Amino acid sequence: MKLASFVHSNKIAKSEFETRLPILRAELLEVQHSLRKADFPVIVLFAGVDGAGKSEVVNLINEWMDPRWLINRAYARPSEPGTDTDRPVFRRYWQDLPPRGQIGLFLSAWYSQVLLGTVSQQVPPEEFPRHVERISRFERTLATDNALILKFWMHLNKRNQKKQLTRLEANPATAWRVTHTDWAHWAMYDRFVIAGDKIIEATDSDHAPWRVVDGADHRYRSLTVAEHMLDAIKDRLGATGSLPDASTSAATSAAPESSADPKPKSETPTKVATTEFKPSRVNWLADVDLEQTLPKGEYRKRLAQSQGELNRLCRMAKQQNVSTLLAFEGWDAAGKGGSIRRILQALDPRNYRVIPTAAPTDEEHAQHYLWRFWRHLPCAGNITIFDRSWYGRVLVERVEGFARPDEWQRAYDEINEFEEELVESGIMVCKYWLHITQDEQLRRFEERKATPHKRWKLTEEDWRNRAKWDEYEEAVNDMIERTNTPLAPWTIVPANDKYTARIEVLDTVCEHLRKTLSRSPSSTL
Amino acid sequence: MKLASFVHSNKIAKSEFETRLPILRAELLEVQHSLRKADFPVIVLFAGVDGAGKSEVVNLINEWMDPRWLINRAYARPSEPGTDTDRPVFRRYWQDLPPRGQIGLFLSAWYSQVLLGTVSQQVPPEEFPRHVERISRFERTLATDNALILKFWMHLNKRNQKKQLTRLEANPATAWRVTHTDWAHWAMYDRFVIAGDKIIEATDSDHAPWRVVDGADHRYRSLTVAEHMLDAIKDRLGATGSLPDASTSAATSAAPESSADPKPKSETPTKVATTEFKPSRVNWLADVDLEQTLPKGEYRKRLAQSQGELNRLCRMAKQQNVSTLLAFEGWDAAGKGGSIRRILQALDPRNYRVIPTAAPTDEEHAQHYLWRFWRHLPCAGNITIFDRSWYGRVLVERVEGFARPDEWQRAYDEINEFEEELVESGIMVCKYWLHITQDEQLRRFEERKATPHKRWKLTEEDWRNRAKWDEYEEAVNDMIERTNTPLAPWTIVPANDKYTARIEVLDTVCEHLRKTLSRSPSSTL
Repeated sequence: MKLASFVHSNKIAKSEFETRLPILRAELLEVQHSLRKADFPVIVLFAGVDGAGKSEVVNLINEWMDPRWLINRAYARPSEPGTDTDRPVFRRYWQDLPPRGQIGLFLSAWYSQVLLGTVSQQVPPEEFPRHVERISRFERTLATDNALILKFWMHLNKRNQKKQLTRLEANPATAWRVTHTDWAHWAMYDRFVIAGDKIIEATDSDHAPWRVVDGADHRYRSLTVAEHMLDAIKDRLGATGSLPDASTSAATSAAPESSADPKPKSETPTKVATTEFKPSRVNWLADVDLEQTLPKGEYRKRLAQSQGELNRLCRMAKQQNVSTLLAFEGWDAAGKGGSIRRILQALDPRNYRVIPTAAPTDEEHAQHYLWRFWRHLPCAGNITIFDRSWYGRVLVERVEGFARPDEWQRAYDEINEFEEELVESGIMVCKYWLHITQDEQLRRFEERKATPHKRWKLTEEDWRNRAKWDEYEEAVNDMIERTNTPLAPWTIVPANDKYTARIEVLDTVCEHLRKTLSRSPSSTL
Repeated sequence: MKLASFVHSNKIAKSEFETRLPILRAELLEVQHSLRKADFPVIVLFAGVDGAGKSEVVNLINEWMDPRWLINRAYARPSEPGTDTDRPVFRRYWQDLPPRGQIGLFLSAWYSQVLLGTVSQQVPPEEFPRHVERISRFERTLATDNALILKFWMHLNKRNQKKQLTRLEANPATAWRVTHTDWAHWAMYDRFVIAGDKIIEATDSDHAPWRVVDGADHRYRSLTVAEHMLDAIKDRLGATGSLPDASTSAATSAAPESSADPKPKSETPTKVATTEFKPSRVNWLADVDLEQTLPKGEYRKRLAQSQGELNRLCRMAKQQNVSTLLAFEGWDAAGKGGSIRRILQALDPRNYRVIPTAAPTDEEHAQHYLWRFWRHLPCAGNITIFDRSWYGRVLVERVEGFARPDEWQRAYDEINEFEEELVESGIMVCKYWLHITQDEQLRRFEERKATPHKRWKLTEEDWRNRAKWDEYEEAVNDMIERTNTPLAPWTIVPANDKYTARIEVLDTVCEHLRKTLSRSPSSTL
């Protein structure tokens, strides 16, 4: 459907509106009540031309539904104060997502940059696909986690937009609603519509469909949006099984005349979950030389040197606004904590945060599993160290069955995309697997058992995990094979000797930092 | 105790350290384990001179205890990027507080501004009391909510500080630990110590005591801090009753030689909870003229005018970085939602957030009751509207018995201090009580009952609340009497007529904004 040829045709008479509205409101409230207990969030995005009623429709939905379970968000440009300018742009959208059972209403949000950028030509054509890809990934990631995503393009043809603005301006009581920006946008109407068409086409999908709504008549537009939301939520609630596969569900009831062309099913980007999973054929852990040792004297000397170098590099990184993210994984008792502390000793405590990954809080649990990691990203020039990380999805959650096979199997791509997003926004990402042998682990377990102040570190869970060593090894190999990307590489650390491990960790952080700092100032896409 | 005359005398031999440490570590872990189930947080603050081992001690505590239940925080100067520069300075400390059952380790934090400011003379003597007062209030607010607060001043005498820096510098492996700033601070040693003395004296209290620790010997300082923490937590855990009154508890076991002079009990600032509560003798609601009405035609005209004016003023506020906070309270069915929506219609959705106050999440529940409101403060130039607010503490929590009498009785002062803090950081605070008669409420309840799409708004709770009208009226009167401050005034809105109410709300927001904007640019203390 081309916006340029979109024909204004729909009006709802006041009497009809007043008949339909009470029924609609009662139903909206009922469905919102049922949604509260459902295990998916509803994400509603509004874009479109000025004067077509985006804000007005959102305000009405707030009037018609229970505002306690609605989240409303509109965003200033990323460069304005108070917009979390020091972190990746998508972080704000992630942080504002509604928890399961609630509805989020977003004005433009993750579409505004590409839309305004295309109109103003600040996003050149060659960068367009990349922008669209990021949006598609974001929506697909949420949709495969069961989010119901609805997108409305509120439209006016050029004549109606002008009429709308002129009418508001003519009345002294409403003239303030029309700003210079509105007229500036009107002057760019044709370009705006071409950009809109292009974006709608590129981001329309079964799991995040666009619907174009004529905004000329305020009764028509508000009833249309609200009824569409109602139907879509009802359909999803009524669908058999509470976890429909996004690639096959058709949760929307878009009327053919005004919905954007749905893409053929085969083109939906949820194929990840449907392809057969092939385990890694490489044993990444087999070749690690666990025999190396470092004498204490040598260790001490090198520790001081490496910490000095790390300190120097981190100061440079701070000056250049290069943020660092380190993720630590490894066998139980492999020495993650000790390695992390040797890093911290070299840092200014004002510039780092350590995030120990414990069980999620209920706020975190009601969100996508990546949400809580987005929450803790470092701001410009700072360092965040995750003691265990999002890789829990493909390690413990896989082995223990906390995640279904389709969930952990698609997690590799989700994680790669997550890390790519971070790297592109100027964060250096390094990941560490601390590797020890089964024998060494046993020796350390026994030592912990025998030492009162180390005993707390040894739990029954550790013994249970140990009993599943082979399953974990398989998971580790799959993880490294699938997520060892040039942008965010894994370092497998030989950790049978603690001194060797600590120096190896410090030195590779330094090495990565040196490389990152030697490149031109990071982009802040 | 004067820092200047502080005598370095304490050393622990390596052999003694190695005997005591394993026992201490085992005990620390045990007490941390018990703390997890306790209903108070532990807040540990470290300040002191460079080289006395603040960071090192924090790192060791992280090594000795389970880092999953430790929060570590150090802060860049408020003006640096990534430090939430657009919101009140204390917001960051509030947001980072450990939840009940956990320990927070803070480096300088809420002391750094007054400490460095006093040394550099950027905080002139006449502003010193105000800085100290804010700190005392913050600590008292947390302590009366049961937080265990410990403060350590890590000290070195001038000679030892120089020795420490010189020794580090002499060794190429550790020379990087000494920065220009360290020497610059050393040059200001005497001033630093005078400032430290002054601050310690002004902020030492039973519920948040200082302890000066000699930092010259790394074994002595780390054992001393850790043992003191251990004893204090153990004492608190062992205290009969899990909610000791802060004014009588003596949770600390500071050894007399190195603890700061404890103040006499009568001077502790927790007297609020112990003075007898005298109910308001004024009926603030009695004189409200509930007979006024506004005809629909007149309402429409004035609505458009007032919304236009509000829009204009909010744009000015945005330009001048004046933030606005509106809190709405009122009888059930008094029309809060409708009034709020009439405000929103005049605003740019990018600049406001509406926070409906529902039941706290578990993250919120594990914190002080004001924590979740600090969380949602507007950033520079923006508007936050609370649909119900922190006044729940002295309304529903009081009437329903969710808060104990001492809790809601001290809440008036806590709330006044909270609002004062906001106003001083440049936020305009307005509070609305929407008032209707009992008859009008009944009429509206009946109407809601009869209208399908309004029925959801009427719950059994509403009827229960209505049955307690007199108790609520008493609570409202006490609330207005005690929290109607010049800085953050209440507006009692006659709301029997919805049109009158909406215009009154809009017009008073405009009036307050005009006044605020006409004053010189707000301070950002």
